[in-house]
Amino acid sequence: MPDSRPIGVFDSGIGGLTVVKALRELLPNEKIFYLGDTARVPYGSKSASTVERYSLEITEMLVGEGVKTIVVACNSASAVALPKLERILSVPVVGVILPGAKAAVAATRNRHVGVIGTRATIKSGAYETALSSLSSQVRVTARACPLLVPLIEEGWLNDELTDRVIVRYLEPLIREGIDTLVLGCTHYPLLSGAIEHALGPTTTLVDSARNCATAVQELLDRQQLRAPAGNSGSLEVALTDAPDNFMRVAREALQLDVGEVQLREVLHGAAKL
Amino acid sequence: MPDSRPIGVFDSGIGGLTVVKALRELLPNEKIFYLGDTARVPYGSKSASTVERYSLEITEMLVGEGVKTIVVACNSASAVALPKLERILSVPVVGVILPGAKAAVAATRNRHVGVIGTRATIKSGAYETALSSLSSQVRVTARACPLLVPLIEEGWLNDELTDRVIVRYLEPLIREGIDTLVLGCTHYPLLSGAIEHALGPTTTLVDSARNCATAVQELLDRQQLRAPAGNSGSLEVALTDAPDNFMRVAREALQLDVGEVQLREVLHGAAKL
Repeated sequence: MPDSRPIGVFDSGIGGLTVVKALRELLPNEKIFYLGDTARVPYGSKSASTVERYSLEITEMLVGEGVKTIVVACNSASAVALPKLERILSVPVVGVILPGAKAAVAATRNRHVGVIGTRATIKSGAYETALSSLSSQVRVTARACPLLVPLIEEGWLNDELTDRVIVRYLEPLIREGIDTLVLGCTHYPLLSGAIEHALGPTTTLVDSARNCATAVQELLDRQQLRAPAGNSGSLEVALTDAPDNFMRVAREALQLDVGEVQLREVLHGAAKL
Repeated sequence: MPDSRPIGVFDSGIGGLTVVKALRELLPNEKIFYLGDTARVPYGSKSASTVERYSLEITEMLVGEGVKTIVVACNSASAVALPKLERILSVPVVGVILPGAKAAVAATRNRHVGVIGTRATIKSGAYETALSSLSSQVRVTARACPLLVPLIEEGWLNDELTDRVIVRYLEPLIREGIDTLVLGCTHYPLLSGAIEHALGPTTTLVDSARNCATAVQELLDRQQLRAPAGNSGSLEVALTDAPDNFMRVAREALQLDVGEVQLREVLHGAAKL
């Protein structure tokens, strides 16, 4: 039975719009409601318990919007809050970690996968857990790259200084011999050109945004939640704080029609669920 | 009449410890209670209304600690929330903007002052307002430098890449002919060596942390709030989220004895005051 309710997508900020971009391309007749917690961005430098509490508050707001499924388009939130969200929420939840891990296992030939992300994501070991649940033979080298998000938000996307920061972060992973690199942060696809250049042609890049969108498509098909075929898709964007410079950067880099951005106040207290 | 209650200091995160360092040196027999809102750091990229709301919530918590005065050791919060805090709070409040502006007016010879800070601080125009209230003849060139805080928090303090980012940010200010630069963010004193190097010997650096400490001393003297002469000073640090890597960086760079860090939950709703 087709279901015309919107897909709810959330991220700590605006980086999750890379997932929205992939969803719009793959599922053009779905409605999407995006909620970015820009009043408390970033999650990636905060503790697991704080990220979990924020994720619960934000998903509660999405449930209030009548969504049919929730996409956690934030690696930090997926890394630490997904089990609890799956337990508590009445709608199915898709994170970015497992889809990315699956794609990495499929891509690697030498069974050595690199992962980059925020401090919270890397510290959680969520990719290691997901990868080892999929294959006992995959070795993982992970590195937190906390400067990449600020560089992206500054708009220094095609920039020699950004390239040098990327090289510094990636050099140890390349030296260790990874042949596949997971972009474990939804901001990072905006730097994929520069990251590919730093890695060279023999390393495969796994973009968690695109793989997450595919996982959403599979879930909707499996649970018969797809919008009616004739539906025209749409995108609504709400933020918990006024949009800043990065909204302009993201709009331009993603070529995404974001429309009028709504402002929402965070509902506190969901963490007590 | 001497007053042995603590001085309350707050910042969005840990950067305000540069103000604490200056206070400890200047007022060694005062007790200091420091509260860093690390659960919502940074303020500098958020909107004025969100920063004001957060500042009200945090100062409410400090008042609950029985402090005798509140130091807003955060330029973003000083820039947008100080008037409201002064109106609402029952204890005197000292910010970082006016002390820095006074020092800049005293230092400049060609009456052209540069200011660097976060997006929120620069966008507020608070330094321009403070400087023009002090002297009608000072010209201001301001620039937001959003990458400096993440670079400091990554611990890249003596680093060629950080130096190049600084040069890129400062070049337009140097070209415009400033002879004095205000470090309008309490993190920045941790980069003062590199910033001085980029500016060259003819430009004076104004450190808002040190000037703020002097303003606190003057306030305590004026209102007879100094601790009894024989008091032994102390420092208590509380954060709204668990300390991360940057606490280690700050401890080392500042040589500050922070002791055991306490965790406090944010009290929501103070904004309705």
